[in-house]
Formats: sequence, C-alpha cells, structure tokens
Amino acid sequence: MRRLGVHSFVWTDGKTQAGLERALEQSAEAGYGLIEFAYLRPELFDLDALAKRAQGLDIEITVTMGLPVAADVSSEDPAVVKAGEALLANAVAAVRDVGGTRLGGILYSAHRKYDAKPTARGWQNSAAAIGKTADAAREAGVSLVLEVVNRFESNLINTTAQGLAFLKDTGSDDVTLHLDTFHMNIEEANPAAAIRLAGPKVSYFHIGESNRGYLGDGVIDFDRTFDALLDIGYSSDITFESFSGAIVDEALCLACGIWRDTWTDNVPLARHAKAYIELKLGEAERRRATNARP
Amino acid sequence: MRRLGVHSFVWTDGKTQAGLERALEQSAEAGYGLIEFAYLRPELFDLDALAKRAQGLDIEITVTMGLPVAADVSSEDPAVVKAGEALLANAVAAVRDVGGTRLGGILYSAHRKYDAKPTARGWQNSAAAIGKTADAAREAGVSLVLEVVNRFESNLINTTAQGLAFLKDTGSDDVTLHLDTFHMNIEEANPAAAIRLAGPKVSYFHIGESNRGYLGDGVIDFDRTFDALLDIGYSSDITFESFSGAIVDEALCLACGIWRDTWTDNVPLARHAKAYIELKLGEAERRRATNARP
Amino acid sequence: MRRLGVHSFVWTDGKTQAGLERALEQSAEAGYGLIEFAYLRPELFDLDALAKRAQGLDIEITVTMGLPVAADVSSEDPAVVKAGEALLANAVAAVRDVGGTRLGGILYSAHRKYDAKPTARGWQNSAAAIGKTADAAREAGVSLVLEVVNRFESNLINTTAQGLAFLKDTGSDDVTLHLDTFHMNIEEANPAAAIRLAGPKVSYFHIGESNRGYLGDGVIDFDRTFDALLDIGYSSDITFESFSGAIVDEALCLACGIWRDTWTDNVPLARHAKAYIELKLGEAERRRATNARP
Amino acid sequence: MRRLGVHSFVWTDGKTQAGLERALEQSAEAGYGLIEFAYLRPELFDLDALAKRAQGLDIEITVTMGLPVAADVSSEDPAVVKAGEALLANAVAAVRDVGGTRLGGILYSAHRKYDAKPTARGWQNSAAAIGKTADAAREAGVSLVLEVVNRFESNLINTTAQGLAFLKDTGSDDVTLHLDTFHMNIEEANPAAAIRLAGPKVSYFHIGESNRGYLGDGVIDFDRTFDALLDIGYSSDITFESFSGAIVDEALCLACGIWRDTWTDNVPLARHAKAYIELKLGEAERRRATNARP
Repeated sequence: MRRLGVHSFVWTDGKTQAGLERALEQSAEAGYGLIEFAYLRPELFDLDALAKRAQGLDIEITVTMGLPVAADVSSEDPAVVKAGEALLANAVAAVRDVGGTRLGGILYSAHRKYDAKPTARGWQNSAAAIGKTADAAREAGVSLVLEVVNRFESNLINTTAQGLAFLKDTGSDDVTLHLDTFHMNIEEANPAAAIRLAGPKVSYFHIGESNRGYLGDGVIDFDRTFDALLDIGYSSDITFESFSGAIVDEALCLACGIWRDTWTDNVPLARHAKAYIELKLGEAERRRATNARP
Repeated sequence: MRRLGVHSFVWTDGKTQAGLERALEQSAEAGYGLIEFAYLRPELFDLDALAKRAQGLDIEITVTMGLPVAADVSSEDPAVVKAGEALLANAVAAVRDVGGTRLGGILYSAHRKYDAKPTARGWQNSAAAIGKTADAAREAGVSLVLEVVNRFESNLINTTAQGLAFLKDTGSDDVTLHLDTFHMNIEEANPAAAIRLAGPKVSYFHIGESNRGYLGDGVIDFDRTFDALLDIGYSSDITFESFSGAIVDEALCLACGIWRDTWTDNVPLARHAKAYIELKLGEAERRRATNARP
Repeated sequence: MRRLGVHSFVWTDGKTQAGLERALEQSAEAGYGLIEFAYLRPELFDLDALAKRAQGLDIEITVTMGLPVAADVSSEDPAVVKAGEALLANAVAAVRDVGGTRLGGILYSAHRKYDAKPTARGWQNSAAAIGKTADAAREAGVSLVLEVVNRFESNLINTTAQGLAFLKDTGSDDVTLHLDTFHMNIEEANPAAAIRLAGPKVSYFHIGESNRGYLGDGVIDFDRTFDALLDIGYSSDITFESFSGAIVDEALCLACGIWRDTWTDNVPLARHAKAYIELKLGEAERRRATNARP
Repeated sequence: MRRLGVHSFVWTDGKTQAGLERALEQSAEAGYGLIEFAYLRPELFDLDALAKRAQGLDIEITVTMGLPVAADVSSEDPAVVKAGEALLANAVAAVRDVGGTRLGGILYSAHRKYDAKPTARGWQNSAAAIGKTADAAREAGVSLVLEVVNRFESNLINTTAQGLAFLKDTGSDDVTLHLDTFHMNIEEANPAAAIRLAGPKVSYFHIGESNRGYLGDGVIDFDRTFDALLDIGYSSDITFESFSGAIVDEALCLACGIWRDTWTDNVPLARHAKAYIELKLGEAERRRATNARP
C-alpha cells in the first residue's frame, strides 16, 4: 500500500469550501494520507486553496465521480456523449487544479440504476470517450481509473473481467481499473480471484463493507482480499469508503440507496477503519511470509 | 424443510399459459415440489387449469410480487395506497384461485430503486394496508409473507430487524417474513444471526447466490445459512431463485438489474440447485448431530 | 469479556521466579489484566511474592496444567488415579496461595498423545476424581475449568459435547468448561455452534490461532467465534495463547509439537493479540447491535 | 482432476486379502477410479491377484505409508536409516508388483507424535534416503510423493514450504508433494496459498475434513481449496480420506488419534464424498469461468 485514504463523505456532504477544508484536516487528524473528493466544480470551490491546504497537511487528493444522465458517455445519443466528454475534460482539469493526479469512479456511464440493457454502441461510445479523455488526462498529469460497480449503480461494467475488456477497447494503456470490495461482493464469483485476474491493471482500491457501514459489520472476507492484493504486488493507494445518511450528500445517498444510518459518529468510524486496514494488511503480510518460510 | 421449490423464472418469462404449464412440468421433472409464480392476472391466465395441472403433478404453488409504483402502499398519497390495497386483494384472490396458500415478495412497497427516503407516514400506510390484506387473506386461506430485500429494490424493509418491527405495526399475527440469501448478503451484518433473530417469524426462504446465478458462483456462506435454519427449527419451504437474461421477464430483468447472463441452459442449473441444497442441508443436519454427540 | 489474559509462555519458559515476575510485568505493560501460569510447584517458587507482585500490578492469575502420565486420573490403575488426585489437591492449594481463583487445562487426563483408546472405567475414575477435587476447590475459593483439547493432546475430552457429558458425571455443579479455538478447529463440526451448545457451562476461553502462532496467521474464523461468545452472553475471561520454540518450556514444546518458531519476538506478538481481540470483540458487539436495530 | 480415489480404510482394516479385494469392488461400486492402500507386505498378500482384480475393475492403486520408528530415515542412527531405506525399497517393489505407480505418505520420517525436535542431520539423512529411493523408484515406474502432515504425526515436514525445501535437498526432480486438507488446516497460514505455492510440485491430493469424518462436518474451506487446485492447473488424482474406529486398522487409529467414530456406515460416506467432490469441483470450474467472462 502506498497511501491509506478516506472518502470525504465520511466527513462532509461536500457542499462548502469550509466543509472540504475541515475534511482535509480531519483526514490528517485520523492519520490518513489521502482524501477522496467527489467532482469539484471549479465555479463553486477555490481549488487552489484546497490544493495548498492539502499540501500543507501532506494529504493527497483523488477525485471520483459518476456521470449524470445528461452527460452519459455510454448513451447512443451523440449529443449526450459529447456532453459527457466535455464534463470529463472539465473534471480532469479540476483534478489537476486541485493538485490531484487521479480521476476515478463511474467515468464510463451514468451513476444510476439503469432501466435498459447496455448496448454495443453505448459501450463503443463510452470506450472511445474514455480513450479520448485519457489522452488529455496524460498531458494534465492525471490518470483515469474506472470503478467496477454493482448492477444497481451502472449497467456497463459490473465485473473485473468486463472492466479488462473495456480497457482494451479504449485503446489506451493509461487507463486502469478501480476495484471496490462492496461492489465485488455483489458481482464477482470470487472477489479475490477477480483481484488476481486484474493484476497490474488495478491501480486504485476501495475498502468498503457489504452494508457500506463499519468494517466488520458485514460479510466481506477481507483476509482473502488483502492476500490477493499482496499476490498481485499491489503497491498503490487504498481508500476506505462508508456512507451514512448522517453526513452524506443527498444525491449520492439516493443514488446509493442509503436509507439507514449504520453510524452517526464519523471519528470513531474513521479511526476504526484505519486500525482495521493496517492490522489486516499486517496480518496478510505475515501470513504470506509464514506460508513461504521453510 | 417442507418442500423444495424453484422460481418459475428459471423456466419461463411467464407470458403465456403454455409457458406456465411447461414450467410446472419442468419443475416436477427436475424433482421440485413447489413452484413460485409471479402475480398471475386472472384476466390473462386460466388459473383453474394451472391449479389442476399443479395438483396432478403434486407441485404446490406460491405467488410472489412487488407492487408497481402506481399501487405502492407505502406511498403518502391515499389514492395510490388504495390502489395498492385493491391490487393486493386481487392478488390474494388469484393465489386462492390457482390453488396456492402463500403470497410473498415486496407486498409492502413498490419493487424499484427508490429515489427518495422512506417516510414514517409511508411506513404506517403500508403496515395498515398489509394488516388489512392479512384479514382478507386469512379468509381465503392464504398467508402473507413479506420479503426483506436489498436497498436497491425497496427503501422500506431492507433488514430482518426492520421486517420484525414492521410485522408488529401491521397488528396481525398472521403475517410473517420471507428471507432471501441474495438480499441478506448485501444488508445484514451477519446473515445467519439475522435468521436466528427472525426465528419463528420466518416462514418462507429463498436460496439465491450473490450474483443471482448458479449456487456456488458467489460468496454466500450457505453452510452457516443452513446451520441457522436448523437452529430455528425451520420447517417450511425453501425455494431456489436465479435470474438470467436468457429467460427472465424483461420487466423483472430491469427491476433486478440482470444485465449479464450467468447461465443460459436452465435444466442443469435447476438440477444442480436441487442437488446442492439437498447435499448442504444433509451436511448441516449431520454437522448439528456431530456437534451434539458426546 | 471480564479480563483479557495472556499465557505466560508468551513471555517465559517459567523456570525461574524472576522469569515469572518479569512475565507479570510484561503482561501489565502490554495492557493485559490476567496471566495464565502453568502449575507452580510451591517448593520451587515463592507463591506469596508472586501473589503480591500480581496484586500490585492488578494482574489476576489463572493456573492451568495437564496431568503427567504417572498421575493420570483417567487411568484404570487406582494408584495412578490416587497420585492424580493428590496432584490436583496440591495444584488447587497452589492456585489459592498465588492468589488465583481458577485452575484449568487438562485436569482430567494426562497431557499427551495417548496410544490407547479411552475406557469407560478411566472416564469414571476421572469424573470421580474431578468431582472430589471440586469439593476441595470450592473451599479454597478456586474453580475448576476443564479444557476441551484435540485428539493428539488427550483421548478423553475432545469435543464440547463430550465435555458437557463429563461435567454431568462429575456430580458437581461447580466444574465448567474451558474452550480453546485451536482445539475446536480440529475437533468441532462447527466451533461457533459448540460455543452456543456449551452456553453457561463455559467459563474460560482461549484464543489461539490454528498454527498456534500470530492471530491471523491461520484459518480460524474469529468473527463467528466472537459472535457466538456474545450469543451466549459470555462475560468471563479470555486469554491469548501462542507458543514458539523461541520461548516456551521444552516439555510443553514437545507435548504440543512446537517444532517451528512462528515468531521470536514476543512484545509485538502480545500487542497485536490485544489489539486484535479488542478490535474483533468491538466489531462483534457492533455487528450484533446492527443486526438487531430496526 | 485425473481420477477420484478413496482410501481403503474407508472399507477395510486391510488385514486380509479378501478385505482388500472387497475394498476394490466397493470403490468401483461407489464410482471411484482409484484406491489408496497402506503398504502391502508381499509376504502377507497376493499382490498379483490384487493387481489383476484392480485392472479388471479399472481401479488404479496408490500405496501410502508412514515409516515405523525402527526404520525412520530421519534418524541420526545410520542403522535405523539403513533399515528405512530397505523398507522403502521393498515398498517400491510392492507398489510395482501390485500394479501401482505411486508411493506416498510419510516416507521421510516415522509416522508418530515425536518427542524430540527434528535435527539437521536427521533432515539430511532423510533427504538422502528419499533421493536414493527415487532413483530406484524411477526404474520401477513408481513415483514418490511426500505427504506434508501436521505436527502431531511427524516433526519433519509440516508445511508446504518445508516440503518444497526438502524436495530440493533430495537432489531428485522426480519426487513431488502430496498435500492433504486435514493437515493443512492445522499447519498452513493460508491453505489455498500453500497450494499455489506448491504449484507443479504437488502431484497427489487428499481431501479430508478437519475432524477426519464426513466432508462438511468441519471447518475446511473446500471452495477455496478447489479454486486453488484450478489456479495451479492441477490435473492429477484426488483421494478422499476419512477414518472411523468402526473400520480402521488399530495401529493407524492410535497413530492418528481416532478415539471417536464420526461415522459407522461407509457406503453413504463414500457416496456423499464422491458427490461432494464432484459438485464442488464443478462449481470451482464454473466460478473460474464466470470470473473470467467479460
């Protein structure tokens, strides 16, 4: 693991500059080295001030987003795809301006429960749009990571294998995958095997519990998850994600179906997650060493 | 276990009388003793003929449904609630007319990805409607079982504990819960503990894998599931559920986000599920006996 | 959990007074509230000094032992049984004298790989000897807890169900069981179910990994273990046990087959175990609350 | 998987020619294609008759053994080592004479609970003896497979990593490992990772439950076991092993600590094991395909 991150929605609904700055501080106070923000519209936030605050705290910034329906690059409507490409270009610029180097999430489709099957043309439109965005992103020093999500949050890329096929169709070697334990728990036949299948093509990783609450408050087998990350020599960032109606942005709340509050107090949640991930990662390293020691 | 059932969507999209009758035969051929149908509109199907065919094959019929938005008894709009009550009354009659004794599923809300949080009034409207329907159902010899489903398919009852609280608010002792391993995998902190929490209040049970495909093609811990069913002395029916775009009704496909076909050939799927459930149940019984033997 | 303990063999081979006193200090330094000693022969150690040192550090003492072959109360030879009863009486006195209140371990047989099947007479001799010892122990303010161990370390009580049957045959209500995750991993069809089977009859609990090394360095499902302890309202002590050839007493090393050193540095081991148990117990409590919250 | 085998101790204590022949028949009747015999002393059995009977039934024969103390090739006493080499040579000849092609088990040490740590000289003696035996075995058309066993049944090779180091020290490329889920459950930090570590060096595999009884009557994660076997492209034989005092040879019973009968009726046991292994293997293949399908 390079840096341990936390999603800003643990701290704030992300509506105000002050909320984002406080989230940076709270991440640092809880011992994290990275924060994940949702797309920061430059007309609403002072990105430069955020960048400086983050740098002062030695907190790196990753930005993730899901496209809105009106800018869905997996649409069959060229105008909608074009709007999506423009949005992605703006997002890349915002990542650069806030001092970040990674744009992740559902960049390849809308973030919604679809009411139609994906189409071959939509897939091609999306892959082309991502490929085009990747070129611009490279120049901006930003890497694109595509989040593989469950069937209820996109209809296009629900499994790692689909993600790998999609990467090829983008025609770009720069684009990689962003895996997430919450989504894998719904979609993968064997989540650890999916991580091994992705291998070097995964460069961002979300740790989230099956009910999106406290780690341990669900069914995910994190021992096998960390074993698999070590199997592939994963050396990039890992970010903890948990949503509660007590904090989270309402739009995301509805998109993700957060009807229940599995927690209300975020400080113990974030401290527990950090202790949990570090303990489990240490155990996985020890297990690996023990297994190999003659 | 009383009877081992299979959802009719394994066999048919349920659009035609012939499809339903063939599904009855295929269920019997694969060794099942119960079939689960979606709501059978009496104006579209010859319920009496289905009842006779089922009786001749010694196949029992359970009916499940999710309400449409226009008949959502958890609405705050009295007209919509009223439409829901009428639909439930019709469904109870159809169950009776097809020779069934159980109406299950998402009877308490729409089957959809909601875009708003549930409300206290909606909960009360729903509980009252279910209580009222239960009275009518009792006279028709039909029992109501409420399916606890994941956050993306309803916003009202996502956990067993919520289901138990809802049962109390219906004011009826006749209504019980319908649990499902697929949904529990997303929502319960510990699915086996949820089964033990429900105890005698669970009277119908769905076995489905985490990706809704073949049993074994996912992460669900069925050993602990069957152990828990034995812990509570569960003696009612267990039904296998799996959806594939190769067969399933399109509306359900979209409601459930079935974008991928995890299988196309239903006969080996159904035979495997029967062998799997019987093997696992036998192992759980043996494990329980072994654990208790001095 | 009442107190979190650590076995003294994590710290010392227990050969010297200074070693035992240092073990008390190290236990306290690592944040434990209880230490488990092997049988302390009063002619070799200053029990009173140990008792005072422990009291000063607020560390409680539990003593465990396995009988030697020459004092095996499950023998068919009355002289050997008599020797065993005398040894148990001495051990009870030593527990009292060192300020302890609990004598545990393999009190009912030798601690060895047997080379013969257990006999009915041996079982009766053992149960009678334990019953007799329990009467004397009560007067000394010491409770007896019988450790259920794997087939390679005794031939008499390998499962919880056997332990419960044995308790009845002692004729004493004072004697209870001492369960251990390492042993349960080899013997129980379902370890968590075994804990629930024991219920109020378990009053001491060992947390040990499947290879007797670091927690996490093996296959034991501690989540289900802690869930089960909460299910039965377990409110007594939990002690961490791990053996390495780097520290442990040679006799125990041979009895337990410790041929490999899974660790050499005991301070990080003990700190990890404490953090692990507290984290996992907290998660189990949270999981239980989440599961029950409507 | 090449052939599915069953240990002869499921059927017989192996004391008589008739018992062995009946075991061959019962293996075939239960659908197995391979039987595992304990070392067959040529002066006691008509090996040629067994070979013909096996051939007629299309049952292959594998022989396994553990050395006696007096012929322990890991001894520091040259005379004992020499006796061991002679025994191994005889065993190789017996395997050839009974029409088998594989000699497995604890060929590198005694099969016992040791009461001393292994020594470097003992390890070297053993490796040299195995290397020498391998040369003779090659000429006889017999391959040697070394079983990695738990600490209570040998002190020399308890983990896969130790086994791999030992293979190197034999100086032979012909010798490979024989892994067993029962033993791995006690010794390996991660049994599935151990299988992947062994890779092409494992050429025989035992499926046994954690309590050595019915599959499913314990804690072993067979899903991950079969996934790992597919990961390494395992294409050799898999043999089911279970011991009960109702059948098994007394010497083995004592060596393995079989004090309890987890079953008495072997026919349903063997049929269940075959169904279980085939079902689980099929699921692992399907899971692997599902995981990889874009």
